[in-house]
Formats: sequence, structure tokens, C-alpha cells
Amino acid sequence: MDTNNASVDSWEEVILIYSSAMKEMVTRLEILSNEFQHTHSYNPIEHLKSRLKTPESIVKKLRRHGYESSIENMVTYVKDIAGVRVICSFTSDVYKIAEAITAQSDIEILSVKDYIKNPKPSGYQSYHIIALVPVYLSDQKIDTKVEIQIRTIAMDFWASLEHKINYKFDGNVPEEIRNQLVDCAGRIRDLDDRMLSLNEEVQKANAPGAETKQQ
Amino acid sequence: MDTNNASVDSWEEVILIYSSAMKEMVTRLEILSNEFQHTHSYNPIEHLKSRLKTPESIVKKLRRHGYESSIENMVTYVKDIAGVRVICSFTSDVYKIAEAITAQSDIEILSVKDYIKNPKPSGYQSYHIIALVPVYLSDQKIDTKVEIQIRTIAMDFWASLEHKINYKFDGNVPEEIRNQLVDCAGRIRDLDDRMLSLNEEVQKANAPGAETKQQ
Amino acid sequence: MDTNNASVDSWEEVILIYSSAMKEMVTRLEILSNEFQHTHSYNPIEHLKSRLKTPESIVKKLRRHGYESSIENMVTYVKDIAGVRVICSFTSDVYKIAEAITAQSDIEILSVKDYIKNPKPSGYQSYHIIALVPVYLSDQKIDTKVEIQIRTIAMDFWASLEHKINYKFDGNVPEEIRNQLVDCAGRIRDLDDRMLSLNEEVQKANAPGAETKQQ
Amino acid sequence: MDTNNASVDSWEEVILIYSSAMKEMVTRLEILSNEFQHTHSYNPIEHLKSRLKTPESIVKKLRRHGYESSIENMVTYVKDIAGVRVICSFTSDVYKIAEAITAQSDIEILSVKDYIKNPKPSGYQSYHIIALVPVYLSDQKIDTKVEIQIRTIAMDFWASLEHKINYKFDGNVPEEIRNQLVDCAGRIRDLDDRMLSLNEEVQKANAPGAETKQQ
Repeated sequence: MDTNNASVDSWEEVILIYSSAMKEMVTRLEILSNEFQHTHSYNPIEHLKSRLKTPESIVKKLRRHGYESSIENMVTYVKDIAGVRVICSFTSDVYKIAEAITAQSDIEILSVKDYIKNPKPSGYQSYHIIALVPVYLSDQKIDTKVEIQIRTIAMDFWASLEHKINYKFDGNVPEEIRNQLVDCAGRIRDLDDRMLSLNEEVQKANAPGAETKQQ
Repeated sequence: MDTNNASVDSWEEVILIYSSAMKEMVTRLEILSNEFQHTHSYNPIEHLKSRLKTPESIVKKLRRHGYESSIENMVTYVKDIAGVRVICSFTSDVYKIAEAITAQSDIEILSVKDYIKNPKPSGYQSYHIIALVPVYLSDQKIDTKVEIQIRTIAMDFWASLEHKINYKFDGNVPEEIRNQLVDCAGRIRDLDDRMLSLNEEVQKANAPGAETKQQ
Repeated sequence: MDTNNASVDSWEEVILIYSSAMKEMVTRLEILSNEFQHTHSYNPIEHLKSRLKTPESIVKKLRRHGYESSIENMVTYVKDIAGVRVICSFTSDVYKIAEAITAQSDIEILSVKDYIKNPKPSGYQSYHIIALVPVYLSDQKIDTKVEIQIRTIAMDFWASLEHKINYKFDGNVPEEIRNQLVDCAGRIRDLDDRMLSLNEEVQKANAPGAETKQQ
Repeated sequence: MDTNNASVDSWEEVILIYSSAMKEMVTRLEILSNEFQHTHSYNPIEHLKSRLKTPESIVKKLRRHGYESSIENMVTYVKDIAGVRVICSFTSDVYKIAEAITAQSDIEILSVKDYIKNPKPSGYQSYHIIALVPVYLSDQKIDTKVEIQIRTIAMDFWASLEHKINYKFDGNVPEEIRNQLVDCAGRIRDLDDRMLSLNEEVQKANAPGAETKQQ
């Protein structure tokens, strides 16, 4: 059973289910984070954030796409009611985390959008997964949509600023500011590339210090 | 794959897996707790505690049962490395929670001990479940044993005192003190019965106040 | 400056300040809890709960006492907007915690009610402190009222049931049920006394096990 | 009384005090964070991290500076046993937070180092405060040193990579890699400048969208 045909009939109940799916997804990511930390002495997950979409913003999204505000429409058409964001150090980490989530046998991947390989015209970069996560209630299991956004620290910084700008201009961002955002996105991509290649160079390097430590 | 035949080869790795299983179990119980709170306006879970057995106490337990200290023996014979305790208000809640856990299709119940129906001679009352909980690591799923202890607030209070007393006397509790513990256990059982029946009486009562509220 | 004359002018701002005072008080209690755990190997604090009064219940309280709903009245007359509850194992612990809070030089104790020495006619037992706790905002310090309720596990159990019953009957609890509550309160007081004296007896006891452990 | 002359006599007790000071500092920063979020609809604090220095690294630091490993030396000479890191979006936020901490009347600022105005030769940028934070134990108040590092997201990203590189090469980082780090630090400073000026431009901009929202 998934939220599309479950017998949920009130707003509070639906939100409770999405909130539970978000909790479950965060726990799975924390488990992965601890695993990487302990067994590989390196943690690709810098930190996690999670948020539930507010009622206002759900209604706004439905209206923008021409749908009435009903629980049914919300469950069908709003795919990011529960959102989890994974902030990684390096671009390569983004794909490691995506792979580990995809491999979990009881999670179904509904869609993937790779805005790192193909950034949006605005400059936005991020890796998006819509996944169905099992939520165990007292008398039923409900597979529930969670949007997982995975990106680097620098991409996340850019995205916060863009979000704030879009909010302020209600979508109609002046061209001059749009251009500066695109320019910053380019610099961020360049910085991520340099930090990643520096990191890889260091990992391959012959480090006398490290050897000494293991003696 | 479960921890008995997984390719785990170090103490830290094993502990990490049990700690992850504990986290997963706590999340599922928090989801149940929120569900009861929101949809039934009543929460059978008063609070949750969790703990990992320390290395010393794992080794001690193995020795007491005549086993060598090896990862294999620990995974096979120590069933409470990961422990979650659920504290409920009423005895009836204990069974509600046990039922909800048992119903989760990806959790396997290995054993159940009902020390509420059949208290230990010491007076100890609690409901124990050993369950196999799925832990999703980056490249494998490992079903891991978690001990879930479910009991009322009053039973938990008694059990903390008994634990402290056993620890102090290293198992050889003087008879006089043992007798007082048994006496307190009886009073606790009596108190739980009275509080439960008072609660049930109240739930059935015709409450003009409550009706007024719903008008 | 305290909340009575601070330049707070909106409901959200006032609630933010109370919520901050609650956080600060919880942190101080957690510090005490860790101290007892580590330096005395014994923790008088079993667990902590905190809650902010809801707008509805603030308005209801003001109305019951004949005051208009204004921020000024709420800050002056509602003393339990921020509430922290400390659950202890034994009655003696309640007084230890009360003393440690009272000793903190930047916290001012506004009032104390000892419903353990003098239970309410209903049977209610608890130790209440109204304290002024300093909250450091970005440009001012605001001393803010927090109600701290300290009680044993058993008293807390009784109080939850009484609260539920009062809520259901909107204050008009049938005499038969009131009598049962008083009876349960007596049993709880008796149980707390027995558990405490058993604990004290154990602490004084000559414990060969404990000695062995220290060798 | 501060940790320098307090009657603390064991390692565990000292660590407990530093851990409490860290908790207290984190709570105060969370309160500031909520205040900015609610009253200015803008949060200069992106996230918080805290850590206690490990025994090994305390001993190593003492040895590097030629001191014996004693509790007295550790309390006197190791100023970053308790560390809190505040990650901000923009450089201007760093100074806002520093100011708000400095204004708290019961916190004494022992020293300030502004590596943003004056970056280290390595390229390291961050704002460091050593502060004395009051810790209320059950029978005494102990003013305890906490190091607060405040920096932007981009500076923090750079610093994590530099820390990893220093650790790997045990301080002897090859010149080629050192040069690349300096180059990345320049790019980060440039990026922070551009993002900040874009943000300021946006704040000043005439935003028809924002006006519409307020109607």
C-alpha cells in the first residue's frame, strides 16, 4: 500500500506519514554516515537537513500546476512534501551516497534528476532522487515519497542564496542578478573541481607522515 | 544475510552494526509514538531509552555461560548487545506496542518472554522481545538482533532499583533485602492494576465535560 | 531587564523568549545530571521533559482569573508559560535538585511550593519552583519565568492520570473517581517511602560484592 | 572560581566541566539562531558543530609546547579543549555573531584572533574567540574556556580539506600541494566576496514581488 491509495483521510494524518518517512530516511542516512566514518575513516556526508513542506507552499504548488487543493492531489502531484538534504564534501561523494540509497532493497526509486551533470540554466546544481520509503504504522505499512537532494557544500551555499533571491523577487529575478548568479555557479563548479582534484592528489600521494603513524 | 554469517571482522564494525539496529528500532518506535499521539490523542509510550552493552559486560556474559570471547560467540550468544526499552503508562499499553512491532513485516521475532504474566521469582516484571531488525549498510543488508523490553513506569522504577542492588551485592543479595524487593514488586503490580482500572473506568464514563468540548 | 518591562511587542517574540528560557534551564539540568552521573556514579535525575503552554491554554488561564488576553497580562500573570519537569527516582533526590538550582547565583527564585510535604487535597504531590532565568538575546538580557516541577517517577505517573481525568471531566470529576485517585496517591506515597528506605538500607549495607569490585 | 584554581582532581571531572561549558555555549548560540530566524526572518547561523579535544590530542599539544601532561598544564595551556564552530552564510554574519557573544555580560572574552582580516600564510580564514563561560555545578560555578570558531561555509570547507591534508602529511605538506591550497583559499575569498555583494545588492533592490507579499 502506498500513500496514493491508503485510507488516510485527514491533513494531520497525511503529514504524520510524510514526517515519519522523513525520519526513517534520515535514520538510514545517519547509519550510512556512521558506517563511512567508522569503517573508511572518512565521511562523505558533511551534514543532513530535513524539512516538511508547509501547508501554504503545498497549496501554492498545486495551484501553480492547476490542481485543486485536495489530499488526493497533494499525495499524487506534490513529490517533495518530505525533503531530506544530504550535504557532501566532494562531487564524487554525491554519487557514492546516491548509490548506497539506491541499493537498499525496500526503497523504490521513482525518479532521478542529475543537475550536476546537467545544471539548470540558472546555474543550479544538485542530485535529486524521489524515493518510496516504507513507513510502518501500528496496523499498516505505507510506502511514502521522499525527495532526497544530494549536493556539495558549495552547491548548497549557492542554492540557499538563489532560493532567497527567488523568494524576494517572487520568481521575476532581474537579469543583472540572474547573470551574477550564473557567474557564481560557474565559480562554485570550478572550486569544487579544484578541491576534488586536490583531494584525489593528496589521497594518491606518498605520505611519509601517514606511514609513520601506522608503524 | 544476518550478523551470524556476515563478513564482519572487527569489534568496532560489529558494534557499529548493533548501534545502527538500535537507532533503526528507536526510529520505528518514535514513529509509532507519534502515530498514537496524533491519531488516537493518546500515547501508550511514555518514553524510550536505548543502550549498547559495554565490551566488559559482553565478555562477562560470555564467560558466565562458558564461552570464549570471540566475535562469533558474541554475535551468536549475546542477544541483548543492542537494547531498547519502551516505558508505557499502563499494562495494556505494553501489549499494544508489542503487537505493533510484531506486525512489521521486515522484522523477525526470534523470541518472546512475558514476565508480566509470569513474573520472575525476584518480582521482576517486563515484556521481552528479541527481534531481527534490518540494517542497510552501503553494500549489504544485515539483519541484527535487538532486545526490546516493554514495561510500565512502575515496573521500570522497580527494575532500576533491583539492578542497582544486584550490582552492589554482585548477585548475592541478602535475603532480607530480597524479601523487601518482592514485597515492593507486589505493591507495584497492585498499583498498576488500580491505575489501569481507574483509567478504564474513566474512559467508559459519561463525561459531560468532554461532550461540551465537542459541541 | 525582565519580560515584564522588556520591549517585546509580538506574540511570536514573547514565545521565542520563553522557549529560550526553557532551553537554557534544560541545559543547566542536563549539566547537573551529567555531573551526578560522572562524579557520584548515581543520577538523581531519571529524565527531563519540557513544554511551552499553548496559546489556547494561556488565554483560558487568563480568562479563568478574570484578565484580558494581552501580552502584558500573560507575562505578568501566567507563570508557567515555560515549564520544565524533572523526574527523580527518590523523594530525597527531589530536594537535592531543588537545592542545586536554588544555588545558581544568576537564577532568582520567585516562589516555591512543596506539595510533597503538603500534598493537595486531590492527592497531588510535586515540588514547584518559579524561577527567573537569564536569556541572552543579541542585544539584551531578559530574565524570564520558568516553572520547574520536580517529582518522583511514581508521583509523575499519578499526575499524568489525574491530568487526563481532569481534562475529560473538565474539572467536574465524579466523587467516586476522585476518591480512587486519592487512594492511589496514598499508595504511591507508601511505595515511594518503601523504595527510598530500601535504597538507603542498601547504601548502608556491608556489600562484599562491591568491595571485591574495588580491589 | 575558574578551572585554573578549582578543586578538580581527575581527568573525567575536568572533561565533564569542559563538556558542560560546550553544551552551555551551544545552547546560547541556538538561542541566538532562533532569535535571528524569528525576529529578523534571516538566520546568519547556517549550522553549529561542537567537539571535545581527545586525550591523545591534548597530550600531543602539551608535548609540542614542551609541557608535561598534568591536569594543571592542560587547564592552563590548552585553550581549545572545548570547541564550538559556528558556520555562517556570509562574512558579515561572522561579525554579527561575534558581537552578540561578546555582548553577553557573564561571558569573559580572553582573546580574539581575526584570521579573516589577516589570513594565515596557509590561506586559513576564520574568526577565533577564547571565552570564559560559566558552568553551574551542584555546589560551585566554574568559569571554563571555550574556543569559538566562526567562519563562512566556504572557509569551513577549505579548512576541513586543509586539516585532512595536514593530518596525512603530519605537518610536512609538499610545496606543490601547499600552493594549491593557497590558490583555493584565494578563490574561496573571492567567492565569499561575490556572494556577499550579490546578497547586499538583492537586499537593497526594489522587489515588486516582496511588496506584493506584504499587501
